[in-house]
Amino acid sequence: MPGRSSPVGVFDSGVGGLSVIKALMERLPHEDYIYIGDTARLPYGTKTKSTIARFSIENAEFLLSKGVKLVVVACNSASATALDALRARFDVPIIGVIKPGADAAVESTTSGSIGVIGTEATINSGCYEHEILRLRPGARVLGKPCPLFVPLVEESWLDDPITHQVAERYLAVFRATRVDVLILGCTHYPLLAGVIADVVGPGTAIVDSASTVAGAVERLLIKMNLANDSDSPGTHKFYVTDLPAKIKRIGRMFLGIDDLSIELVRLGAS
Amino acid sequence: MPGRSSPVGVFDSGVGGLSVIKALMERLPHEDYIYIGDTARLPYGTKTKSTIARFSIENAEFLLSKGVKLVVVACNSASATALDALRARFDVPIIGVIKPGADAAVESTTSGSIGVIGTEATINSGCYEHEILRLRPGARVLGKPCPLFVPLVEESWLDDPITHQVAERYLAVFRATRVDVLILGCTHYPLLAGVIADVVGPGTAIVDSASTVAGAVERLLIKMNLANDSDSPGTHKFYVTDLPAKIKRIGRMFLGIDDLSIELVRLGAS
Repeated sequence: MPGRSSPVGVFDSGVGGLSVIKALMERLPHEDYIYIGDTARLPYGTKTKSTIARFSIENAEFLLSKGVKLVVVACNSASATALDALRARFDVPIIGVIKPGADAAVESTTSGSIGVIGTEATINSGCYEHEILRLRPGARVLGKPCPLFVPLVEESWLDDPITHQVAERYLAVFRATRVDVLILGCTHYPLLAGVIADVVGPGTAIVDSASTVAGAVERLLIKMNLANDSDSPGTHKFYVTDLPAKIKRIGRMFLGIDDLSIELVRLGAS
Repeated sequence: MPGRSSPVGVFDSGVGGLSVIKALMERLPHEDYIYIGDTARLPYGTKTKSTIARFSIENAEFLLSKGVKLVVVACNSASATALDALRARFDVPIIGVIKPGADAAVESTTSGSIGVIGTEATINSGCYEHEILRLRPGARVLGKPCPLFVPLVEESWLDDPITHQVAERYLAVFRATRVDVLILGCTHYPLLAGVIADVVGPGTAIVDSASTVAGAVERLLIKMNLANDSDSPGTHKFYVTDLPAKIKRIGRMFLGIDDLSIELVRLGAS
């Protein structure tokens, strides 16, 4: 049985979820972390609910085989579509990134109009809208898929005129509305936060669903009496299902550290 | 044993290979075709050689279970990295898109300087360079990965100022050289042929490796006495491993027909 000293498990379709690990390590530095990125089958955001659920179950099984006490679904697409399937199957607490992001957006909004950007799977699932309306009936939620943002981040074209124009095109729809909060519903998007804030302007608060999840994990660990009470810094171990050369470069960009050791594993039939 | 009336099998990581099917149907209209697109695990172009080989073997096994007489590897990334693994394992003839593209480029070039664009897997494999140098020792081959082109095509931003600027940035390297032929080493790129030709200018011939493969298939079928001698139009059957809503839209764009029936199958452990 997992206990207080067991690691926290985090999975993502790739290395974008390392931004969630980074937020967790800052907030909960005494926890140990196990990360699995399903890079052989990424991205999840263009795929169907049933395929994403199947892949997600295999990720969670891998983490549980490592004895984790909690599973964080760092991938928005998997959080949007596979959380019920995961909770029906596994006993450990499972936290996605959607609810913490929705909570933070509802707390921030004055106008009651909230924008959400993400992959096609995330936006088409309507998951943020569903959570937001549960918290604040009558809120207006406007979603917009932005499929070019992930490859732009992976090219490292972060502060770039082309990225600016793509953002202008995707985000124009929010200008015409009274949206005063915009949820970054994809773990890659925080790296474009500067460009996105420029385009939407100072009247719109940006909510990063990846970092809000760290607070939710902290509250849950305390509530369940599962927080690690060690005084020493925690350990971390990173696994991926495929390891092309650029993954380490992109991983370091997300994690913000130079020393990134990643191990290759076969996951289900990835 | 497959014979003259057996179907031709074609696989790709997604639906881009439908541009190869389209060229085959135009050139060899009396053949029957079976197509499998591994949409659950696409794209292949960002993944490693061993992972692409494993996925490719599963695609070929599926086609062989349908009795095909020949396997066309429509995906450049798989042609670049998995052809040897496929030929070592299966007895039917296996044709990739690389050699036909290299042949056409060597025939076209005057300067002996040939450019190649494709995914990271294709360009990093050096496959076009290898083929070209075998045909014409002393040729100069300059490769450039263009990872944003596929998502731009899938957004249908074909004749678009943003796509133009991305093309300007990726292709600037060819302007400074004496490249007089540019190989489109990815099945998505023919849809950007107009933009690409604008950017590289009239002095550079464009070789579409997807359509040159149709000629290679025709020659091989005749040589092996495997061409279908039926007079009636051939049939075609399309399978994918995941079927999100947009796949049909993109598939129709590639195939150039409105009536596209696609069946979902589970492939290996996709």
